[in-house]
Formats: sequence, structure tokens, C-alpha cells
Amino acid sequence: MQNAQGGALAPPLAVEPFYLPAGDEVELFEQCHHNKLAVMLKGPTGCGKTRFVEHMAWKLGRPLVTISCHDDLTASDLIGRYLIRHDRTIWQDGPLTAAVRAGALCYLDEVVEARQDTVVVLHSLTDYRRTLSIDKTGEMLEAAPGFQLVVSYNPGYQRMLKDLKPSTRQRFVTLDFEFPPPDREAEIVVRESGIEPSQARALVELAHKLRGLQDRGLAEVPSTRLLVATAQLIGRGIPVRRACRVALIAPLSDDAALVGAMTDLVELTFP
Amino acid sequence: MQNAQGGALAPPLAVEPFYLPAGDEVELFEQCHHNKLAVMLKGPTGCGKTRFVEHMAWKLGRPLVTISCHDDLTASDLIGRYLIRHDRTIWQDGPLTAAVRAGALCYLDEVVEARQDTVVVLHSLTDYRRTLSIDKTGEMLEAAPGFQLVVSYNPGYQRMLKDLKPSTRQRFVTLDFEFPPPDREAEIVVRESGIEPSQARALVELAHKLRGLQDRGLAEVPSTRLLVATAQLIGRGIPVRRACRVALIAPLSDDAALVGAMTDLVELTFP
Amino acid sequence: MQNAQGGALAPPLAVEPFYLPAGDEVELFEQCHHNKLAVMLKGPTGCGKTRFVEHMAWKLGRPLVTISCHDDLTASDLIGRYLIRHDRTIWQDGPLTAAVRAGALCYLDEVVEARQDTVVVLHSLTDYRRTLSIDKTGEMLEAAPGFQLVVSYNPGYQRMLKDLKPSTRQRFVTLDFEFPPPDREAEIVVRESGIEPSQARALVELAHKLRGLQDRGLAEVPSTRLLVATAQLIGRGIPVRRACRVALIAPLSDDAALVGAMTDLVELTFP
Amino acid sequence: MQNAQGGALAPPLAVEPFYLPAGDEVELFEQCHHNKLAVMLKGPTGCGKTRFVEHMAWKLGRPLVTISCHDDLTASDLIGRYLIRHDRTIWQDGPLTAAVRAGALCYLDEVVEARQDTVVVLHSLTDYRRTLSIDKTGEMLEAAPGFQLVVSYNPGYQRMLKDLKPSTRQRFVTLDFEFPPPDREAEIVVRESGIEPSQARALVELAHKLRGLQDRGLAEVPSTRLLVATAQLIGRGIPVRRACRVALIAPLSDDAALVGAMTDLVELTFP
Amino acid sequence: MQNAQGGALAPPLAVEPFYLPAGDEVELFEQCHHNKLAVMLKGPTGCGKTRFVEHMAWKLGRPLVTISCHDDLTASDLIGRYLIRHDRTIWQDGPLTAAVRAGALCYLDEVVEARQDTVVVLHSLTDYRRTLSIDKTGEMLEAAPGFQLVVSYNPGYQRMLKDLKPSTRQRFVTLDFEFPPPDREAEIVVRESGIEPSQARALVELAHKLRGLQDRGLAEVPSTRLLVATAQLIGRGIPVRRACRVALIAPLSDDAALVGAMTDLVELTFP
Amino acid sequence: MQNAQGGALAPPLAVEPFYLPAGDEVELFEQCHHNKLAVMLKGPTGCGKTRFVEHMAWKLGRPLVTISCHDDLTASDLIGRYLIRHDRTIWQDGPLTAAVRAGALCYLDEVVEARQDTVVVLHSLTDYRRTLSIDKTGEMLEAAPGFQLVVSYNPGYQRMLKDLKPSTRQRFVTLDFEFPPPDREAEIVVRESGIEPSQARALVELAHKLRGLQDRGLAEVPSTRLLVATAQLIGRGIPVRRACRVALIAPLSDDAALVGAMTDLVELTFP
Repeated sequence: MQNAQGGALAPPLAVEPFYLPAGDEVELFEQCHHNKLAVMLKGPTGCGKTRFVEHMAWKLGRPLVTISCHDDLTASDLIGRYLIRHDRTIWQDGPLTAAVRAGALCYLDEVVEARQDTVVVLHSLTDYRRTLSIDKTGEMLEAAPGFQLVVSYNPGYQRMLKDLKPSTRQRFVTLDFEFPPPDREAEIVVRESGIEPSQARALVELAHKLRGLQDRGLAEVPSTRLLVATAQLIGRGIPVRRACRVALIAPLSDDAALVGAMTDLVELTFP
Repeated sequence: MQNAQGGALAPPLAVEPFYLPAGDEVELFEQCHHNKLAVMLKGPTGCGKTRFVEHMAWKLGRPLVTISCHDDLTASDLIGRYLIRHDRTIWQDGPLTAAVRAGALCYLDEVVEARQDTVVVLHSLTDYRRTLSIDKTGEMLEAAPGFQLVVSYNPGYQRMLKDLKPSTRQRFVTLDFEFPPPDREAEIVVRESGIEPSQARALVELAHKLRGLQDRGLAEVPSTRLLVATAQLIGRGIPVRRACRVALIAPLSDDAALVGAMTDLVELTFP
Repeated sequence: MQNAQGGALAPPLAVEPFYLPAGDEVELFEQCHHNKLAVMLKGPTGCGKTRFVEHMAWKLGRPLVTISCHDDLTASDLIGRYLIRHDRTIWQDGPLTAAVRAGALCYLDEVVEARQDTVVVLHSLTDYRRTLSIDKTGEMLEAAPGFQLVVSYNPGYQRMLKDLKPSTRQRFVTLDFEFPPPDREAEIVVRESGIEPSQARALVELAHKLRGLQDRGLAEVPSTRLLVATAQLIGRGIPVRRACRVALIAPLSDDAALVGAMTDLVELTFP
Repeated sequence: MQNAQGGALAPPLAVEPFYLPAGDEVELFEQCHHNKLAVMLKGPTGCGKTRFVEHMAWKLGRPLVTISCHDDLTASDLIGRYLIRHDRTIWQDGPLTAAVRAGALCYLDEVVEARQDTVVVLHSLTDYRRTLSIDKTGEMLEAAPGFQLVVSYNPGYQRMLKDLKPSTRQRFVTLDFEFPPPDREAEIVVRESGIEPSQARALVELAHKLRGLQDRGLAEVPSTRLLVATAQLIGRGIPVRRACRVALIAPLSDDAALVGAMTDLVELTFP
Repeated sequence: MQNAQGGALAPPLAVEPFYLPAGDEVELFEQCHHNKLAVMLKGPTGCGKTRFVEHMAWKLGRPLVTISCHDDLTASDLIGRYLIRHDRTIWQDGPLTAAVRAGALCYLDEVVEARQDTVVVLHSLTDYRRTLSIDKTGEMLEAAPGFQLVVSYNPGYQRMLKDLKPSTRQRFVTLDFEFPPPDREAEIVVRESGIEPSQARALVELAHKLRGLQDRGLAEVPSTRLLVATAQLIGRGIPVRRACRVALIAPLSDDAALVGAMTDLVELTFP
Repeated sequence: MQNAQGGALAPPLAVEPFYLPAGDEVELFEQCHHNKLAVMLKGPTGCGKTRFVEHMAWKLGRPLVTISCHDDLTASDLIGRYLIRHDRTIWQDGPLTAAVRAGALCYLDEVVEARQDTVVVLHSLTDYRRTLSIDKTGEMLEAAPGFQLVVSYNPGYQRMLKDLKPSTRQRFVTLDFEFPPPDREAEIVVRESGIEPSQARALVELAHKLRGLQDRGLAEVPSTRLLVATAQLIGRGIPVRRACRVALIAPLSDDAALVGAMTDLVELTFP
């Protein structure tokens, strides 16, 4: 039996990925890593969770394996499967198994989207056992040193019938993520779009007001990523209000009342 | 391992596809393209979204890959799968993967029809990463320059239990599409059917009245495409009222009251 | 890669199939054909829609491909699939693909029974594109001249949760079908069963009364086909009332009150 | 391509199967056969529908193919499928296809249990076309002379969400079946169990009373088959009341009140 | 085509399995066997149904095939399937087919757990036909002499949406099973655990009291099997009350009130 | 036919796994083992059930097979399946079959997560038969001496529609597990984290208070494992309150009121 793919994970990043820490999250993550504790990153869409994981993988010198979770992700997708070849059957490691063997950081993005039966295979990797049972080959794999499980979780909007089991939640040290404070958010917008700092600060101010609409029915508030997209269009010559319309407001809602309220806030900010 | 299909995408169109811009949508799309921002085209059926994408692909000199979304479209349909051959297994790129490799425009028509777990594979292609993770081969593919994701979305009629996740919506700059203004719509009808401009204008006037019935229960209003079909039958000698009946009214509703109201409007317009 | 089946469609019919036009449906269909417009035939069970399509295929000299729609009809069933052979994998066109290649009339019977995700593959064949995207082979097929899509739709009885999307409905010119007027219906009954014209007229008169019961709970009214079956039994010597009982009333309902009402009408008609 | 099975259907029965006609059902069935009309046998469990079909197959000299319908019966189960062999793929006819080729009677027992999408494949076999479209091979099969479709249907107990579509019901001449009249039922019981005619008549009298309980909640009334089983146990020396208990009452209900009422009737009949 | 497995069923048991008859069930079963009648064993968990079947198989000198029913048991699991081998496809009989060929007793344990579509394949084996239609091979198999179908059914606790169809129920002579009377139950406990007869009688007395709690919410009452397990722990030196706690009470409920009531009864019995 | 995997189970552990008994659970388990009784371990997440099983396997000198149960665990996953190789098909034992052959302890973790149809295959292994029926090979396997089935069950939080059938529950002697008493829990925290005993005792005191919040809506109370994780972070220099926040409170709830109440308790304990 041999592995179908060379299976070499991408090596750890050589260049430091841009990340501005908001508090003690880097230190906490490092201590979890050294204590072999799994970590959950909790916070809204587009607030920097993915970048933080890339940053920590670079800082800790570990390869990073990212898996986007969804309803159809099966345990086999994570662990691996047999492939039929001409004259033999070969086993192919899934991304989780590859990470366990290589001692990589394994990042499951939006873990709540995965089915519970898929999540359950993570359990034995998150306690003192640090093992992965590969039912199909009968192998009981011990995680290489440096392996760490990281998951992200966005509590911001309602999901029907979907939640992590409490017995799963308890297996993760939980770091809360928020949007960056205004100054740092403006700094990010300038860096990624090249617009004037004053315009960036006005955009961040607008975002702050829009985020206040969550109680009035906005399913999810605008992320830093939306601000950057808006700023990029502005930087390419699109009028400010028009850029806000297509890149900031329209992606947030189809509801006429909400769109109206948001348009008013745009016009207040950019009179 | 080799690709089962030659996999050569159709080259960019040599002839400009007919498209009459309604506003700044061409410029906005171009700026999104240059900023590597994904775009959502929002608007009713048959208002020209598909033609706009074909036009932009021609204008930007990119190949175009179109995918009609539906409930059974799996991540594997988008990304690719292994095929068994006599003496080996070969990997076949799906249309999304092919577009990512070729730097094509990839257009997902009626994206809201796709399952959320299928949509989620688009996420890493719509932020700064611009990567596609091909779980089954372990490949992490970076999008070629010029690759751009475009989706269409029709908010006009109610869907049960189906909507895009807010965290997906936020990943797309959103361009609103409406039916063309009367003059341009009449111009299109003349061009595609060859009927008299005065008749075309009367048809457009009728369409305008019919669109006003949406609040009275019409699930969807008549599209420009319906007007063209009606005009084509008129151009072939079918009496005007009869052509309106089979090509304009009957396709819109089975409800006797609504059909009656629509017939009255036809008779008012073509006394 | 080669086609598993010879794939030769049945050639166009040499003998004119019997069809008595009820109005301008033949001319309308011909004009739609020449304008490459898809057509929906709307009307109750057994009123002659299938025969009409066979007639038009003969008249237009096109091969005819008929597909009975149902809940489990997949896009692959329509488009085609790979079959594994001893030393290679071959592609087999589905009936829709075969019709697209051959420029045939493709008739989807009771299209509302199909799943929406199956119906959606028809979209690109019903607008100016006239293309069929074969995801599995990467082929983008242009419809041969003469290809035309025809669907049938029976609005007569309630379906739970099932209806065509408005954006699909708008893609079809819609021809309404009704039962033939009494004289023609009697003529058909005589021709197909050989009974006396007077008996045929009495049967048609009875059918007319039975169709009036729809408002009193009859799920579907008796078709011309039912009248023919009844007449055939009468022609073989079965007593008239007994033939009406087994071939006309019993197939329509199990409800005692409705069966009683229908029996009364039989006895009134054949005292 | 060759057929995996020799495919020879069992030849028509040489010995006349025992069947006592209750009315004109034999003549009606013969006339339907000669007019190529499909037939539905409607009546309660165990009243002789299966025997009647066997009898008619013998009388008409046709082979008989019986298919028990259920929720998981697919169109492929009826029509056929490809089987992979060492050096080729062969096509195997399903039982319906085999019957169509051989001009057999094809009996679908309890057709209402089948899924609608399976039933729909029968449609083209039940009208003037008499064809079966084999999608997977592209074959359009014409039914051999003598082919006739027969289905059974038990309206006796409630089914949730399950019923034949009216457009399917209309395709079958419908023969009603009831339990045989007392004398003939007693004759059958004697013939099949060998008990005394007086005991058989008492059992039939008891069955008549039990059938009167249907309005009081009995899901289904006792069949002739149950009477025969009871009589067989009596014939082997089991006390009459005990035989009624285990073979007649216990199979009908777990409900204490109903079981009590039935026991009272047994004790009244066999004091 | 050859059978993948040697397929030899285990021969009939040489040693009589221990079974204490409670009434006339042995005689009734024998008479059903001789009349080729299928039998249903109805009664609570752990009251000896499985042992009874083993006993009858030994007494009648027939092999025994046992099948545990569950939601995923398919008709193919019962009947058989094709297996692909290197140079041919072979047919493998399922356990039902093997029993039909060998004239074995075929015992379907907890038949109500099976899907209706799986149960329906039993129908033709339970009436005068005694045949099994093997759709996939086209074989119509007649049951060997001695073949008998036996099913078990536990009416003791509620099942949502699950019940046997009345038309299935009617196909089985039904034998009721209860727990053995106190003396015999104590005798069984002594025999299987080796504890003192007085202690066994006290345990049986306790069981009798616990069974009285069914009306107060106990989903299922303690079986003889539970008493034996409790007695075995007592026989190994575990204190009586502690043994009752872990082997008798805890397996029956998590509900604090019910556990309290049961504990009181234990303390009353073993003060 | 040969086994695809060497199939050698891991040999029994050579070093005693750390386990502090809380009562007579070790003796009870040993007696169940000698009486071949299956055992259920009932108690909250993270209270030491898994360690207890590892300890007992070591003490009894048996290999241990652990299976994490989930919704998609099929009977085939437990029992085994055929794998296709180049020139033959081989049978691969599943983990349950491997344990049955080797006389191992087989531990099904969180058995309530498994589907009932999967659980049902355990039945014949938990009564006097001690057999496993391998339907696919026709093998009836007797459990080797020393084989014992152990399952865990967490009654602490509500599950919709999921529970063990009473007839399954009755097959297991049930041992209750609780969190260890304060002194022993503190001893465990010290041993696994190296923090000061006084800090460990304060943490245990805090846990005791948090566990009192279950009646106020906490889905699951903090486990010993959470205390250890918190202590490990404290031991690496993270401030106590911050460590409690990320490792003790955040994993338990997203609810603002509950988080507030828990934070108050943290501040009370570590002022």
C-alpha cells in the first residue's frame, strides 16, 4: 500500500503574514500550542481569524492545513479513502490525517457547518490521547509533536438545528475575536487599498454606525473585508457613494427599509 | 495522472456580443476585475445578466465558464473527480477548477439554487487568498491572474428555506440589474424580431403595465425575453392578441383572475 | 471515447399520425419552430397532447425523442453518463443530448414531475444560446438546427410543493389544450372503437356531464382515452352500463358519493 | 451485448389453477386483453386477486410475470440494468422488459406501494403507443402481442401521502373484487383444509361478523386466507377456539378492546 | 455463475437447547410447521422467544437462519447480490434465499424494525405460492419442504410511524409470549446463576413488583435476562442491593422518580 | 479470501494507565467480565470513563478496541466489508469483528449517537449467544473468551429523537460515573498541570459552583478536563482570571447572562 499523492504538505511560510494583534491572543495561542490544547476562534465573518491562524503557523514554524467545513464533509473526506488503481488499491490520506502525521496546524473553518458525525472524529485528537483512529485501515495514529487542532466559529447569525455538541465545545480553549478598534481598522484599510487615511477613517466610522443596525434586523454586520473592497473601488476612481452602494450596502441586505437606513448613513458620512 | 479531457476552454469570443449598457455597470465590473473582487449580478429573470457577463468576458479578453446552479450540484461537480480508465485512474478538472487554472471568468448562474455546502468551496477564492483547495488530490491551487468569480441572484420570488449565508453574501460586490428603460427595451425588441418600432413600443408599454401587477400576485413579471418571443410570433404573421396570449400571458400564470386582468391590458393596448 | 450505443434516433415517421386540429395550434407550433422558441402544451390528461407532438414531428420532418418526467429523473439521465467497459470508459449520450445533436423534437412529458435541479439544465437550451453544457465531459454543445424543446403540463389537479419556477415558465410559449368539441370527440370514439355513431354521441354526452362534477370533488375528469376504452368494451359485447362502470367510473374515484352520482348519470344517459 | 440471464420466462401453466369466478370478471378481463387495455384489480387483501391473474394467464395461454411493489422498487428494477462482467458489460432485462418482449401478462401487486416515479414508466405501455422506453440503452421497445399490464390495488386501509395519480388511475379498466359469497367461501375453506362443511360454514359466519367490526377500528378485515389457516389448525387437532385465537384474532389487532370484541364473537359462534 | 460462499448452513443442533414450555406453544408451532403456515412470536424483550425458535428448530430437525431486522436491512441483504470477482461475477445468496433453498427455519427478529419494502418480499413466501422471486437473477425459487418463516414482534413500547401493514400481519399465525410464571422463572434464575432458590424467588418477586410500574412510565419492564444478570453478580459476591442497582434498576431508567420508586422496592424486598 | 490488514490488534498495555477508583466500579467490572455481561458506563463528559476502560483493559490483560459512535456509523463499518483487489476480492474485518475474534474489550464511545440499526447488530453479542452474524460472508462468529462489550452514555444534555431502545438498554449492566470528589479532583489537576495545590483546590471549588448552574440553563457542566486545561494555562503564566475566561467559561456558553454569572463566580473565587 502506498500513498496516492506525494502528500508533502506545503512547508511553513517563509514570509511573515501581515497580522496586527488585538490583545493577548498570540501569547494565549502559543501557550495552548505548548500544552497541546485545541483552540476555537470565535467571532464574526471577516474579522481576521484566518489571517491569525496563518500568522501563528508562521510564528510556530508549522505547516498549515485548512479545511472549509460544510454539510457534506464526511469523515472520509477528513481521514482518507482507498483509491482503485490498475493493479492494486492504494490508501490516500485525507487532509486531517496528513496534518496529524506531519505535526501541522489543522484549521477547520466554520466547524459548525460540519455534521456532528464528522466532528466526532476529532474527539480523540483533543484530549490526552492525541490519537486518530483510521477505521478503514485499522490504524491508530498518534499525532506528531506540533500537531494542533484549530476551529473557527461564528456565533453572529441564527442557524436552525445546527450547533456544536457541548461535549465538543468543551474540548477547545476559546479565543474571542472582534473587529479591530477604529484606528487599527483604518490602518488596515489604508494598507490594503491605498486610499487617503482620512477617507479610510470616514469609512470605518460609517462601518461602526452600520454595525449598530444589527439589532434592527441586519443578519450580519459589515466586515473589515467589505471596507477594504469599498476602499479599493474608491481608489480606482469610483465615486464614494456609488462604491459604498455596491460594495458595502448591497451585499448586506435586500430589505428596502434596511437598505434605506444604510443609504442614509452613507449620505450622512459622505455628504 | 493526466487530464481526461483536453480541457482546453473555449477561447475568448472574437466578436463583440450585443449588450446595451444601462449605467456604470461596465466600469464597475472592470474595476472589480482589476481589484480581483468577486461580483454578484442581482436582478429579475431575463433582464440581461447572462449577456452582460458574455460581454464583459469579451471586453476583458478572458474565457468564460458558465455553470447553472441547482440542488444537486456537488462540490465534486465544480472541482473535479477521478475517473477510472483501463490501466490507471485519471483526474478530471471540474469547470470551476478549469476556470481557476485558465484565469477565466467563472459565472455561477442562479447561485442561490446551489446547496450551501457547494457554495462554501467558493469562499477561499473570494478573499485575499484566491486559492482553491482540491481535497481529493491534496492540491492547493492558486487562481491564475484574470480569474474572477461572478454569480447571479434573482430576489424576485419567494424561496422556502433557501438563501445565501450572510458570510457568503459579503464576499461579492453587488451590481443591481433592472429591465432596460422603455426606449432601449423597444430597440432590443425591434433588433431581435424585426417588427415595426411602433408595435415594439406598444409591446413595451404593455409589459410596463403587466409588471405593475406584481403586487397583485404575479410571481414574476414578464421579461424582455418574453417580449422578444411575442414579437417574433407577430413578425411571422400570428395576430397580435393571439401572440400576446400564448407567448406573454399564458407563460406567466394559470390563475384565472390574473389571466383575465392581463387579457384586459392586452385588449386595452391592442384595441 | 466512443458512444456505447449506435445512438441512431428513430427516423421521422413516414406515415402521418392521426390528429384532428382544434384551432391554430399547428400554425402556432410551426412558427415557434421557425423562431426556435420552446413550447409548453398545457391541458388535462388524455386530451391529445402526445399525439399532437407526434403529428408535428411528422409534419416538420424531425425525429422525436420522448422523455417521461418523474421525481428521480436526474440531470445525468437526460444528458448522459460514463459507462465502464473492459478496456476503456465510454461516454453515452442521454436522450436530451441525443436530441440536441440530431436536431430532434425533444418532448418532456409531465415536466412538473421532474425535480427543479433537473429542469434547470434546460435553461440554456431555451434562450438565444441554444447550448447544452455537458459538465462531465466539459463539452459545450450547440443545438443542431431543427432542435426544439417541447414540454407538457397538466394544471388539473393539486400537487403539493411542486410547481415550475416562474423563471422556467417564462421560457416556453404556452399552447392551451382542451378536450375536443363534442362532434369531433364522437368522431374519434367511432374511429377508434367501431361502435355506432349514436352510441358514441351518447358516450360523449355522458362525458360532458361527468366533467361537470370536477367542482364536486372529482380529482380529474374523464379523458377521451377513457371514452375510447369504454367504447371498445361495448364494441366487444359488454353491456353498456357495465362497460361504463369498469372503464369510465371505477377508474375515476373510490369515493362512494361520487361513484353514486356518476352511476346516476350513466343510468340517465343509458336508461 | 448479450443478456445475462437466459431470460426464458416460465412457460404458461399447463394445469388450470383453481379459481371460482364471482361474476363476469373472466369475460371482462378477456375483452380487455383483446382490446389491449390495462386492468386494475381492486379489493381487500386475500380475496383472490392473485389467483385470478394466475387463472387468466393460464386461460389466455400467456406467461405470467409477477412483481411485488414497494417503496424501493426503482425504474431500473423494472426495466433492467447493466452488469459488469470480466471482459464486457452486459445488459440484463428487468421483469417488466422481459414481459414486454415475451408478450406476457405483467402483474404489479400492490401498485400503490410503488413510488410515483416508478409508476410513470408504465404510462407509455398503457395507451395506444404500447411502447417501453429503455433510457439506458436508447431502445424504444414495442410490446409483443399478448402483453398486458395488470395491477392490484387495496383501498381498504388508510395510507399517508400515498395514492395513485389520477392520470395513472385513468389508464386502467377497473374490476372490483369482494370476498366470495358465504357458500363459495365455505367451499374454499373445506377444499383447502379438509374440515367438516358445517365447521367451515360456522367459520365463514364468524368471519362475516368480524368483517362488521371494520367501522369500529379494525384496520383490515379477516381474509379468506385467514379462515383457511384457522381451519387447517382445527383440522390438525387444535381446539377451535384456540385456533381462532392464534390464527384469526391475534393477526388482526393488538388493541385490547377489539381483541375482546372479537373473542366474544368467537365464543358466540363456537359456544 | 457459482455461489461465493460454500453456503452450507450450520446443521441442525445436535443437543437440545434448554426451553421450558409455558403452554401449548410447542404443539401449535408444530402444527403450523406441518401446514406450512408462517408464525409470529409476540411478546416483551427477553421472555424467551429466541430460545423457543432454537428449540423448535432442534425439535423439527431443521437448520435455523436468524436475521436481526433494522432500518437499513434491504431486500438485497435478505435475498442476495452479485459480487465482482477477478474474472467473473458470482451470485451470493442472502440468508433468506439460503434458508428457502435449504428448507430451514428463517427467523426475522424484531421484524417491525425492518422497512416495509423489505418486509414485502416475504409475502409470496407466506401464502400458497411459497415462492421467492429473485428479481436480480430472474429466478423464481420454490421453498424447499421444511422451510418456515418465523418473525418476532414486541408490542411493549411505542414506535413512531412504524408498524406492520395489516396485509402483512394477516400472513402470520400469532403466538403470544409472556414472562414465565414465578416458579418457572425462579427455576431458570437458579439454573443460570447458581444462587440459592430462596434468593432467586425473592428476585422474581421483586421483578413482579417492578413490572407493575409499567403504567407509571417505565418504557419496558425487567426481563428474565435482567434477573439472571443480577443473580450472576450476586453469585460472584456483589452485595444484593448493589447488584440490583447496577444490573436491574439502572438499565431500566434514567428518570429520578422511577429510579427512586424502584430502589424502594429493592429495599423492601431485601431489607 | 484473506484479511486485507494484518489485523493484529494493539497488544494489551504494558504500563498501568493512571486511574483513581471512585468506588467499587473496578470490582463490578471484573465480575461482569467473568460473567460475560456487557457493561454501560453512564456519566457526564470528561469524568474519566475512557480512562477507566483503558485501566480495566490493562488490569484484565485484554486488548482494547475503541469506536467513536456517530450518525453515519454503519453496520458495515463495525463488521467489515469486501475490498476489491487486482485479482481477487478480500474481506476486511471491521473493528467489532476484530475485537470479537481476538477476545478484546470493545468500547463504543457515546453509543447513543449511533443509529439504531447499527446498534442492533450488538444484540446477539450481549446475551447467552455471544455470536456475531456476518451477513455478507454468511459467517456466524462466536466471541472468543475474554471478549466484552462496553458502551458509554452521557445522559447530561437533551437529544432530540435520539435514545437507546429499552430492549437495548436492558442488555447492559450499568455503572454510574460522577465527577471525582473535591480532594481527588484537585489531586488530578495538580498531577496533570503542576500548579500549586491551593490553586488547584480553588479551581475545583469554582468548578463546583459552576456545576450548580446547570439548572439555570448551562447545557453541560465543566469537566475535570476543562479544569486541567485551565490549570495548564495558569502554569504557563497566563493570569488566572484570563485562563478561566478562555479555557473554562467561553467553552461552556455563548449566552451573555450565563457568561456574566460565570464571570462573577470566577471573580468571587479569585478576587
